[in-house]
Order: sequence, then C-alpha cells, then structure tokens
Amino acid sequence: MKTMNTLMKKLAVISLIVFTAMVAIPLQAQFMARNAVVSPEVLQDQKVTFRLYAPEANKVAISGEWMPGFGEQLPLVKNDTGLWVVTAGPLKPEFYTYNFIVDGIRMTDPSNAQVVRDGTRYANSLIVPGEASDLYKVKDVPHGSLTKVWYNSPTLNMKRRMYVYTPAGYEGGTQKYPVLYLLHGGGGDEDAWTTLGRAVVIMDNLIAQGKASPMIVVMPNGNANQSATLGDAPDAAVATIAPGSPSAGQFETSVVKDMIPFMEANYRVITDKNSRAVAGLSMGGGQTFNIGLKNTDKFAWIGIFSTGMFGGVQGYGNYDPEKQIPGLLTNSASFNNALRLFYISCGEQDPRFEYTQKAITTFKNNKLIVATAAFPGAHQWSVWRLSLADFASRLFK
Amino acid sequence: MKTMNTLMKKLAVISLIVFTAMVAIPLQAQFMARNAVVSPEVLQDQKVTFRLYAPEANKVAISGEWMPGFGEQLPLVKNDTGLWVVTAGPLKPEFYTYNFIVDGIRMTDPSNAQVVRDGTRYANSLIVPGEASDLYKVKDVPHGSLTKVWYNSPTLNMKRRMYVYTPAGYEGGTQKYPVLYLLHGGGGDEDAWTTLGRAVVIMDNLIAQGKASPMIVVMPNGNANQSATLGDAPDAAVATIAPGSPSAGQFETSVVKDMIPFMEANYRVITDKNSRAVAGLSMGGGQTFNIGLKNTDKFAWIGIFSTGMFGGVQGYGNYDPEKQIPGLLTNSASFNNALRLFYISCGEQDPRFEYTQKAITTFKNNKLIVATAAFPGAHQWSVWRLSLADFASRLFK
Repeated sequence: MKTMNTLMKKLAVISLIVFTAMVAIPLQAQFMARNAVVSPEVLQDQKVTFRLYAPEANKVAISGEWMPGFGEQLPLVKNDTGLWVVTAGPLKPEFYTYNFIVDGIRMTDPSNAQVVRDGTRYANSLIVPGEASDLYKVKDVPHGSLTKVWYNSPTLNMKRRMYVYTPAGYEGGTQKYPVLYLLHGGGGDEDAWTTLGRAVVIMDNLIAQGKASPMIVVMPNGNANQSATLGDAPDAAVATIAPGSPSAGQFETSVVKDMIPFMEANYRVITDKNSRAVAGLSMGGGQTFNIGLKNTDKFAWIGIFSTGMFGGVQGYGNYDPEKQIPGLLTNSASFNNALRLFYISCGEQDPRFEYTQKAITTFKNNKLIVATAAFPGAHQWSVWRLSLADFASRLFK
Repeated sequence: MKTMNTLMKKLAVISLIVFTAMVAIPLQAQFMARNAVVSPEVLQDQKVTFRLYAPEANKVAISGEWMPGFGEQLPLVKNDTGLWVVTAGPLKPEFYTYNFIVDGIRMTDPSNAQVVRDGTRYANSLIVPGEASDLYKVKDVPHGSLTKVWYNSPTLNMKRRMYVYTPAGYEGGTQKYPVLYLLHGGGGDEDAWTTLGRAVVIMDNLIAQGKASPMIVVMPNGNANQSATLGDAPDAAVATIAPGSPSAGQFETSVVKDMIPFMEANYRVITDKNSRAVAGLSMGGGQTFNIGLKNTDKFAWIGIFSTGMFGGVQGYGNYDPEKQIPGLLTNSASFNNALRLFYISCGEQDPRFEYTQKAITTFKNNKLIVATAAFPGAHQWSVWRLSLADFASRLFK
C-alpha cells in the first residue's frame, strides 16, 4: 500500500513537471507580449484603439459604457501575430468603463491597470479627454484625504464602515467644514462613489477651481444589513435589503442618529443644519428623500439623483409624497423656509425621467421650490458624476 | 457623396442591430449562469473547487499561489453544460491569489468578487481557513482606520501619497502612538501592504489579541519617481527607479526629512526614537537597511524582510556592510546600544536565503545583535505577511 502511494506520488510529480514544461514557454511568451501591448490607446480624434494579445482565442469583442445597451459588443479582429484589435469612436469626452469578452467570457483588459469594481463585477476604465471629462482627471492640485473608518451604529446594531473625504488643508488645520452625506445606489457599497463616481477627484478639482466650497464628504454603506463591503467585514453579507423591505428606514435613521454624532465627535465639522447636506443616487436618492425631508432641522441641502421612487422601475411609483412626508404638498412653505436647496436630477434617457418630471410638476404645482437638472444619459454613472458636480457646486454658499 | 455617407451609416446601424441581436441572448445566458456559479468553494478537507462557466472556451486552467512556480497551471475540465471545474488541494491554510487562464489569457474569476492588484496585474484572492491563516481573516474586533493622504516631499520635489493606518480608538482619543514605517517591494506601491499584505487585518487582529502594541503604520510609495500609484496621480509615472539608480537614496532621505515631520505635525505620534520603527520587504528591505542604520538616532526598531542586497538576485550582492554603514562591523556595540531590534527575515526557498544567512553570520561574527526569522516559502507575500506579524509583535515593548 505504501509502495503504491509512493509510486502514485512519483507519477503525480512527473506529470506536474511535464505539464509545467508544456505550459511554461507559451505563458512566458504571452507575458512578454502582453506587456508590450498598448490598450487602450486614445487617438487624437477621440477614437480609441483596444488591443488584446490572444492567439488562442476564437472570438474577442469589447463591451463599453459608450454603447447604448449593456449587451452590445464590438468585435475585435485578429491579425496574424495573434493580436486582436479594434478602434472605437470617435467617443465623446467621458470617463468610461469597458470589458473584453473572450470566447464568451467577460474579463478585464490585461494591458490596462485601471480597474474599477461595480458591485461584484470588475471593469477597466479610461478617460477620453475633453472639456466634459476634464473634471474627472487627476490634476496637479491640492488633494484631499480619503479615510476608511469604522463607526458604531446602535440603530443597526453593528459596527459599520464608511469613507470620509476631507479636503486639502484639513490635516494640520483648525478650520471647521460643512458636511455632505453622499449615498450610493442599489448593488453598490461605500466604495462606489470614490471609484465609479470619482468623487475624490471631482471634489479636489471643484474646490481647487473655486467652484465648490471646501467640504467633508461622508460616503457610508447604504445597505442596512451590511457592515462593510464584501470581504472587508467578518459577516461579508451580500446586500439584500432594499427600500421597501422590513429593514428599510433603519439605514436612514442611522444616518441621523449614528453618523452625524460620530462625525461631530471625531472631525472638525460645522454642526448647524445650514452646513449639512445629504444626497444620493437611485436607491440612495430614495433614502435621501426620506432622510432629508423628515429631518429638515438637520439638513438644509437635499440632492436626489435618478431615484426610482417616483416611478419608472417595476414595483415602485405608488409613492404618496404627502403621506410619506406630511405637509410636503399642503404646507410646502414650511419646507421652502427650512431648506436652502431641494435638488432633483435625472438622466434624460432614464426610464425614471418622465416620472421624475411628473413629480417635479406636482411639487411645483404645490409651490414647493425645487431646483432641477437633467443630463444626457440613462441610469448610469455619467449622470451621477454630473449630478454630484452640479449639486456640490451649489452647496454651502 | 452625402447619400453615400447616409447609406453607409444606415448599413452600420443595421449591422450593429443584427450583431447586438446575435450576442444579446448568449450574453444574458452567460450572465445568469455566471451568477449561479460558486467559485471558489472551500471544502471541509481544505480542498478548493474552482468553477467557470465558459461553454465557448477551448481550454481553461488555473494558476494559483499555492503552486510552486508562477508558470504552473492546473487544467479545469468541461462538463456538458459548459461549466469548467477543478478541485485543488488539500491546500495549507493561507491567503492565496489565483487566476484563470482561458484560451491562453490570464483573467480573474468572475464569480469571486475578491480581487487584489499586484503591480499592474489583477488576481483573485481566497482564504483557506486554519490556524496559519487565522490572522488574515477579518474578524469582529475593533477596526482601525486607513487614510490615503497626500504630503509634501521637498526632498523629492513633489506632493506624494501614502496610506496611514491608525489603530482602533485613535478617532476621538487623546493617546499618542508609536509609528511603524512599512515599505513595499519593487513593482509595488503604497497600496500593496494593505491588499496583498493584508496589513490592516493583521494589525487589527494582533492588537485585538494583545500581541502587538497599538501603533500607527505608515505605508508610503517607495518609488522615488512616482507621486502615487498609477491612475491616482496626474503624472501616472510607471515606477522605474530602483535602488542603485541615480535617484536611489532620495526616497530614503524623504522618509526621514519629509514623512516623519508630516506625521508629527498631523497625527498623535510619540516622537522619540524608541517609538519609531522602519521595515520593508525586498526593495523596501534594502531601503530599510539604509534608512534605519543611517539614522539610529531616529529609529530604534529595524525590520528587513527578504532583501536582495545581500545577494541572490542578479546584479546585487556586492554590498560592503562596513562601507555602506560605517562602523556596522567595526563598531557594532554602538549599533547594539542604539537599536532595540535589528530584525532580518527571509523565505527558506528564496534564492536570497543563503546570502541572507551569510550576511547574518558576518553580522554575528562581528558581535552585531540580530534577531532572525525564517519562514517556509520563496520570494512571496506569505513570507512577508508572517514577517510583518512577527516583527510587529516585537515592537514598542
């Protein structure tokens, strides 16, 4: 028996050596070739060339955020060296994400080290330069800090993690700052605004250009059942609790009861309501609606980006603004007096757009003062980045 | 001409629609199937099953950190539903990284949201649980904060970014803390210790277990020509300057002249040398050798992990300790008096190991007090995580 085991082990070792020898050279070649491949290459005319060295692949395509639909793909063409190439565009200046699809598998571009996570999916990013994307480029300006910090949430009965942006000059200074609480959407977590949303870059640039007041931006995890993003928490719970579920409302309460006290105890923040804003996208827009309008003694600035609560999403749209926020329509003057800014934005191609327009009309018919913005795009990050830049530029002035 | 263009545009649109219709259904199917795939699945016996849904792929293999060599691969086997499967192991408890190789292309596992960056490459991670990997698991313990902060480096004539870990209790407290400056290796940047190195998790756990003193850990970018990791800096310079180049030594100077003053001005740190340590891996080990031993008035604790400066790497090994650090051998007593800990570790299968042993022998023969550690493994992160845990547990006591 022992001899048998020994023989089998020897065979296994020999197989491994043979197998290793077989794969070692192609892998090395691939590694060398990959390192020489430039992808993406942004050309002068805003066209972008994508390349993948994949001599063994049968089919390579690219799926990019500039394409109208998620399922769309543009095929790459293989040359006789095994390099697959396609040139897309011209593309409008923007921060885009994209993936390669190699023999049916969605993957990242190995030549592009810029990778962002969208929930559980990973994609590459690229910037097509121009006026419209200038705000998303890291520039040689004073940079703020980003801290991943844990705070206690008695409301949700857990320690939870959030990201805190402090503007350049915070370290070593004595000044107190206003605070924007900035909420992500469904499927996202506390990481989303700083990666897909480029919130740090946007805030650094807006502040450096004098377009936004220096402010602290708090980006919590908006999934009430999740203490931190997957892998950064012992429970590692997948976010399952959306608005409408039994836990809905608890996160909203925790912003007021847990986060504001934490920020006031640990950061140099101005504590009056005129120096406190809340904004969010999609799911976070609905949360913001409730957090902001139910706490007008705490927040004077409210920003709702691409919410589905007004309609346009299956299962939503039956909201009753007066029931949800008593007085919102019947006593709109009290809200107008309490708020410095009630802001609603949406992408013009978002299915939520027409319902948002209807809600805005209702609000305006009831003399509720609303600032509105519409941006080209569907339910997507390009709209939310523009919303953040627009909203943040109006705050605390 | 105009008609021609219009016709071509129409044809292009039609092609796009046809193409989209062709790919939309398979993509959807793939997307659905992918979400149902569990990979990796760690089994009870420490075997791990990996799965990839790839009906169109011709060849799928896995390359994992538990395999002896970088080029090694283990093939997955396709079943009749298009799912590729392999079970590896049993694997020793550890934090591992791995990639799939699909038709020759190295990619991440789309079912595993845990992804780490190693220089410009991305890999998935997984933890095989057990005593040896317990320190790398996020636990329900008090968590420290991690801040990405920019500081001014007059020495390198640029604003630079670093990561600062502050232990649980730092926020809202008044206590001052000792500081460990922790340096990455060649090809890495300021992100490496917190991702591949799991430094935050290790420090949280060691401190919670009472094995390490609460401390601040500063993780700078050790590439003297790079202000921050790729994509987070306007220059986005690829790190090109290694020790031995004209700029070598400038980074080392900047630690003492730029970082220590920044930390003392902006964080609650204890400022005497007995509360200051420096450690680094590989390239960072060489930097540490110079930073620590040339500044024994600033650092009482020095940790060198897997340095190539003693030999074992092409082009290195001609170092002369006495020339580099005058008195190190001829006046070792002064170093013994100045230092609380001079620590050297290396992986037992690292080509640097035998040269490290020789250097240690030289040091000991000259009565220089050295604490040494050897860990199973080659030039790899498993050794550096163990080195950090071991070194950090000895500090500030």
